Amino acid sequence: MEGLVCVDDFEKEALRKLGNVTRAYYRSGADDEFTLKDNGAAFSRILLRPFMLRDVSNRDLSTTVLGKKVAVPIGISPTAMQRLAHPDGECGSAKAIETIGGIMVLSYFATCSCEEVAAAAPNARKWFNFYMHKDRTITQGVFKRAEKAGFEAVVLTVDAPVIGKRRDIERNPFDFPPHIKLPNACPDEEELSVSKAHDDIDHGATWEAVSWIKSVSRLPLVLKGIQTAEDAIHAVELGVDGIWISNHGGRQIDTAPATVIS
Amino acid sequence: MEGLVCVDDFEKEALRKLGNVTRAYYRSGADDEFTLKDNGAAFSRILLRPFMLRDVSNRDLSTTVLGKKVAVPIGISPTAMQRLAHPDGECGSAKAIETIGGIMVLSYFATCSCEEVAAAAPNARKWFNFYMHKDRTITQGVFKRAEKAGFEAVVLTVDAPVIGKRRDIERNPFDFPPHIKLPNACPDEEELSVSKAHDDIDHGATWEAVSWIKSVSRLPLVLKGIQTAEDAIHAVELGVDGIWISNHGGRQIDTAPATVIS
Amino acid sequence: MEGLVCVDDFEKEALRKLGNVTRAYYRSGADDEFTLKDNGAAFSRILLRPFMLRDVSNRDLSTTVLGKKVAVPIGISPTAMQRLAHPDGECGSAKAIETIGGIMVLSYFATCSCEEVAAAAPNARKWFNFYMHKDRTITQGVFKRAEKAGFEAVVLTVDAPVIGKRRDIERNPFDFPPHIKLPNACPDEEELSVSKAHDDIDHGATWEAVSWIKSVSRLPLVLKGIQTAEDAIHAVELGVDGIWISNHGGRQIDTAPATVIS
Amino acid sequence: MEGLVCVDDFEKEALRKLGNVTRAYYRSGADDEFTLKDNGAAFSRILLRPFMLRDVSNRDLSTTVLGKKVAVPIGISPTAMQRLAHPDGECGSAKAIETIGGIMVLSYFATCSCEEVAAAAPNARKWFNFYMHKDRTITQGVFKRAEKAGFEAVVLTVDAPVIGKRRDIERNPFDFPPHIKLPNACPDEEELSVSKAHDDIDHGATWEAVSWIKSVSRLPLVLKGIQTAEDAIHAVELGVDGIWISNHGGRQIDTAPATVIS
Repeated sequence: MEGLVCVDDFEKEALRKLGNVTRAYYRSGADDEFTLKDNGAAFSRILLRPFMLRDVSNRDLSTTVLGKKVAVPIGISPTAMQRLAHPDGECGSAKAIETIGGIMVLSYFATCSCEEVAAAAPNARKWFNFYMHKDRTITQGVFKRAEKAGFEAVVLTVDAPVIGKRRDIERNPFDFPPHIKLPNACPDEEELSVSKAHDDIDHGATWEAVSWIKSVSRLPLVLKGIQTAEDAIHAVELGVDGIWISNHGGRQIDTAPATVIS
Repeated sequence: MEGLVCVDDFEKEALRKLGNVTRAYYRSGADDEFTLKDNGAAFSRILLRPFMLRDVSNRDLSTTVLGKKVAVPIGISPTAMQRLAHPDGECGSAKAIETIGGIMVLSYFATCSCEEVAAAAPNARKWFNFYMHKDRTITQGVFKRAEKAGFEAVVLTVDAPVIGKRRDIERNPFDFPPHIKLPNACPDEEELSVSKAHDDIDHGATWEAVSWIKSVSRLPLVLKGIQTAEDAIHAVELGVDGIWISNHGGRQIDTAPATVIS
Repeated sequence: MEGLVCVDDFEKEALRKLGNVTRAYYRSGADDEFTLKDNGAAFSRILLRPFMLRDVSNRDLSTTVLGKKVAVPIGISPTAMQRLAHPDGECGSAKAIETIGGIMVLSYFATCSCEEVAAAAPNARKWFNFYMHKDRTITQGVFKRAEKAGFEAVVLTVDAPVIGKRRDIERNPFDFPPHIKLPNACPDEEELSVSKAHDDIDHGATWEAVSWIKSVSRLPLVLKGIQTAEDAIHAVELGVDGIWISNHGGRQIDTAPATVIS
Repeated sequence: MEGLVCVDDFEKEALRKLGNVTRAYYRSGADDEFTLKDNGAAFSRILLRPFMLRDVSNRDLSTTVLGKKVAVPIGISPTAMQRLAHPDGECGSAKAIETIGGIMVLSYFATCSCEEVAAAAPNARKWFNFYMHKDRTITQGVFKRAEKAGFEAVVLTVDAPVIGKRRDIERNPFDFPPHIKLPNACPDEEELSVSKAHDDIDHGATWEAVSWIKSVSRLPLVLKGIQTAEDAIHAVELGVDGIWISNHGGRQIDTAPATVIS
């Protein structure tokens, strides 16, 4: 990793090293990729007004998230299928974020089980991402499993109401390799196929599901994918513990606004 | 059509396959093509604010147009000379739109007759596009023919007051091939030459023509090419049944605004 | 001129045909050429709102300028040194504008005399451009000569208070070829060298000069190069007959606004 | 320097001639270089409204700065390490600015001593740039030395609270060559190494330092690097003699606004 000094450098190097299928899977956004592109470009439109002659000899990025300390206001998003890129998969990401004191958010579509990740990064703060299962007793079982594994919050993905059309993938459809299994989308350590895990998702879930989650889970609930003030207000009214502004990296609904606005 | 997954892909493939003359005829906009370019670019400036946690397990694009149901809010614009591209001509387009439940709008300059199109796509909703003929008894005859063929509305083109200068074509002028005849610009199935059909158009038609159409035709009247609020209000006052915002694809009057505005 | 169908085509062809020195002299703007570039680009930002269903069967571009008819609202700007490009020089331009019924404005730095231009285009409307001479009796003599030659108005250039630095020319300085003489910057047909004509200009002229011109010349006076409302008001108060919004084609003062604003 | 007619030409030629290390050191801005790029681009967005018919036969750029005359409103910024580019170092720059009657601002990280610069350009106006030393008796000694050498004001850099990450340099780290010494960051003519001079800087200095400077130095004090109205007001309240709007050339804090705003 010599000569890699910023995020862009790492992204370019990764795109160079990954195989075609994995690259297309990780890189692609939905449709015209307007949202994907603007997610990055939006940051270039934000200017900061620096104040001078403040004492900056000691700089401290620590803050609190859900009432508890983090050394840095940075976490790993619940990105799926990390074993496509490296055999360590999500365990590697968890160890990295543990090192700098941020938060690991494990994807429902992770390729390492929540128990493996907990063992790999025992001192990291860890949140568990999930989708609503058509069978809610399974979702309830998933909560128990996550809590038992030491995950301190659950994160419901709401910004994937439909799966985006990613053109690179539509042009070159692929099957995930057979060693890619999803061990977290169930209450036990059963390894689901990718297609089974997708088929189980309840695309009809509404705000009623949020009320149900609050009634059955003791863990704090974060909604990932809120993009409007109206939805944020609704979430707060229902007792949601955290709102995560996200457009799913521009991968599901194109033409959604960037997550920062200048 | 393998590997073609979006409209842009189809456009690129078509431009690759078409002969030079047909490509220039279909692709070109007027003058500097500012309007042509912005018709597409304007869409990239429109962002949508997605609401989450709504039940989207069943998605329905159907709506009503002129009081009747369409499965999709999509139609075929009255684009001319489709047999330049394929022997099926407008019959092929009509069958395609019939399949997805949209509306076929047959151009006055179509190369298939309205009777052929009606036979090819009997279950499609079909509208008949026309220009004012210098001899209004002919226009009146055209209405009767369209109605008899099962067309449910007439669509007057108003966004071609003059014919745009398309530079690719001015640089390489061409004659339409002899097999290209226009069978719809007359009350019977006479096949007019392209130049005859053009010469017959009354470029002096004003809003008075709209009143006259409403007085002689029982079919709903749509004005294609309204681009200002002033004209839209005028149209409504005269009893027009539908306003179609259009700049003729940027082909006639350059520097007109795009048809969507962000 | 086959295949040249728009102004851009003619400009490209001219730049291709001209020698290096002439091309640099004609093409260059001052400094960074911000104004030069925006003079063209500004037009691409102007949209028109077309009204439909008006009778456009007969279109008439004629209007009046300084109280007299022109067939088109177009004229030839007082561009210098036209014999650099073609032996016909300004006589050729005058014949062209005569053909379409516009106005010929002859540059003070023209290479054809006003008498030659008058003979070449007897039926064209003709205006005479000038700069203030350090010796005002000479300027007064120029007015008489212009009037005698049939020029109907005088046009004072005010947008060249200093001569712009044009980088292509500063990098490759040149002398005008010896056949280039300026026959209009004097009351008789004496042929001045380019440098003599430049040296004679009074760069200290102020609004007082305008009052003086109005007191000694019977011809209508147009100020070419007004760029602010303040100057326009001043001009009207002093009895100026026409205001010509111009930034000298971006050749003298860079960072001046384009002559049209959207 | 034939053919170099504008600042851009000189910059390009310099980048061509300099060695890799010096080029990277001089050219680089912090992080994504948003501020670096916009510092230049911002000027292209500023238009001027030229007034005409004013007497511009004699043009005078002179003005006063800190109550004294300058022939041009231009100075040399306190840019470091000029002997990396040329053996004359800051003495050469001082002689150049002396020639046109502007102000030489000598960097705390200059490679020529203030005494050498004073001898090289005795008639130039000269200001002395400094950073707060952790040992304030040293800073006080520096003031005395600068005053004795004929420098008329001191300029505190406040826009480098942290040192920016410049990617070209992070990718190819380098040591300054051994002949590069810093003779100005101390009260006597001791030659410090670059790293020693950097280590001595007090990054904890606050507005209290400004009050202290005003209490110990008779020379006017300029703050270089104020970027907000709030800080400017604070500076005036503390009796600062000049505010220098600067973002350190985009080299320290990226995403700061450009120093001019249109």
